[in-house]
Amino acid sequence: MKVSELGEFGLIERIKAQLTSPGNDLIEGIGDDVAIIRTDSDEYLLATCDIHLEEVHFRREFITPYQLGQRAIAVNISDIAAMGGTPTHFLVSLGLPAETEVDYIDQLYRGMERAAKRSGASIAGGNITRSPQLMIDIFLLGKVKHDLLITRSGAQQEDLILVTGDLGKGAAGLRLLNRQTTDKDEMIDAQLLRTAHLTPVPRLPESRIITRLQTATAMIDLSDGLASDLGHICRASKKGAVIWAERLPISAATRRAAALTDYDPLHLALYGGEDYEILFSAPQEMVAALQQAVTAETGTPVTVVGKIVSSAEGMKVIIADKPYPLLAQGWDHLA
Amino acid sequence: MKVSELGEFGLIERIKAQLTSPGNDLIEGIGDDVAIIRTDSDEYLLATCDIHLEEVHFRREFITPYQLGQRAIAVNISDIAAMGGTPTHFLVSLGLPAETEVDYIDQLYRGMERAAKRSGASIAGGNITRSPQLMIDIFLLGKVKHDLLITRSGAQQEDLILVTGDLGKGAAGLRLLNRQTTDKDEMIDAQLLRTAHLTPVPRLPESRIITRLQTATAMIDLSDGLASDLGHICRASKKGAVIWAERLPISAATRRAAALTDYDPLHLALYGGEDYEILFSAPQEMVAALQQAVTAETGTPVTVVGKIVSSAEGMKVIIADKPYPLLAQGWDHLA
Repeated sequence: MKVSELGEFGLIERIKAQLTSPGNDLIEGIGDDVAIIRTDSDEYLLATCDIHLEEVHFRREFITPYQLGQRAIAVNISDIAAMGGTPTHFLVSLGLPAETEVDYIDQLYRGMERAAKRSGASIAGGNITRSPQLMIDIFLLGKVKHDLLITRSGAQQEDLILVTGDLGKGAAGLRLLNRQTTDKDEMIDAQLLRTAHLTPVPRLPESRIITRLQTATAMIDLSDGLASDLGHICRASKKGAVIWAERLPISAATRRAAALTDYDPLHLALYGGEDYEILFSAPQEMVAALQQAVTAETGTPVTVVGKIVSSAEGMKVIIADKPYPLLAQGWDHLA
Repeated sequence: MKVSELGEFGLIERIKAQLTSPGNDLIEGIGDDVAIIRTDSDEYLLATCDIHLEEVHFRREFITPYQLGQRAIAVNISDIAAMGGTPTHFLVSLGLPAETEVDYIDQLYRGMERAAKRSGASIAGGNITRSPQLMIDIFLLGKVKHDLLITRSGAQQEDLILVTGDLGKGAAGLRLLNRQTTDKDEMIDAQLLRTAHLTPVPRLPESRIITRLQTATAMIDLSDGLASDLGHICRASKKGAVIWAERLPISAATRRAAALTDYDPLHLALYGGEDYEILFSAPQEMVAALQQAVTAETGTPVTVVGKIVSSAEGMKVIIADKPYPLLAQGWDHLA
């Protein structure tokens, strides 16, 4: 059997089942985006990695090295933020074609440093090698106090499901990357959505507020798409979920971009991925305080998009009062 | 200017100079193989990464997935061992062609787990993506008690320079990888040297003994070759070094392999790289005790190969009583 038939998550499950020594100081290991490691202090050590590979994850014609550096750091920070953690140190593993211009690398590091500094973390080391394609593999360490950690597994029945910011913009931006236009409104939309796609801003301040209030029950970042990432919460929490399509925060620009490219905006929001928003669950009576605190301090809207239900009910999306199955699928890195 | 003109270490220096926020909890950052991070406890946190990329660092026809898994882990452990550290957790960042057989991945993880278990560390997480070539980027965390840390920077004038095991075998094994032969003696040599090259055993027990005695002044692992890695010690310690060619431990198999492939065994030992032995310096009066302790407990020989001198004298190798300049060069990952 080939890995493409098994798929990314199938392969991860297979690897997980095969490893016999998971390490008894691990709170979360293989299968989660972030490893959570017990230490001698009252903080857990967090470790995650995420790669940007030329022609697979980006094309040089559509992203500047400065943007690419920012993006590589941002998507890693997003994973740490989704646990309530604080990023601390990066290692940068770089694969470079020999003919790469030194100036390109200068710009790449400037972008990485900007995104790292903004998060309070520093670049601590790494590794450089020759490679036929440009490759940036970021390893990020972080920390979180024991009582502030939020994982995927705590969602309770009747909890509401909330999301920061708006959905579908990452995928809409990707669809507009190589479109040429002279229409002024379309140019403004394209500019906005491309920026959202190319240089997502991780929701670190928002996650800090959510964490501090200690009322959220489960949390994840939206890298693979709402359906896929909500699927992780449901599986880990052994629950089901209902999403209300009409309540999904989809911007006017995303809707116009979807129309322009003959695509369903709802599909972008549910399955598009790369939004790097925070998806979380909380008891109903806590929701108003959570929304208010995040928006008051950061300006970022927080929207109720659904409800946690029993695992027997599975995952559904309600469109015009009719339930449809919500497939826990999104971006498969091996498909 | 292209990165190939600047070279690996030139590029690292450039990156280091450009970063304005090195992080005030870093003992060592960019430029060292391992980041050393201050924590609240009496231990430093260590973090390193090293990549194996198909067609650049290995070819599938010459290494089994099980060996490749062992090797990827081993070269990272070697970096942690060279600081007196203990490896604790791995993250595995994997890039896979979609047509890779699942069985290949199973074997790869078995090899990784074997090498990890042997070192006492566990696989804590990672990341999988599609890639045109097989890519294994290992991120390794470790720890070391404050008073046991040995860096590259403590070598003192008149210290002797020692090395575990024997030199040139990694490069000799590489040269024999694709040779066919029916000669029995040559087959035995080839088997031995290929194994040394494909699945090096990191010198973790040896480094623990060296560290425990607290007399070594500087330490590094031999990944790029003695000349290059000794160069790192000399630069960090602001010293020079003399290497005595006649005293370099070069095995009979390495000498025969060198003769077979028309190569100078001394060149393999000085510049070949990939030996994953430990190179360290110690005051002369401590050397006998160090050698005896390591060999008695592990069976691994420890050989005096040279002496630390003033930085004004530079780096030399003495061959038949004549000094020759020792170029701090070896494997350049961007050349």
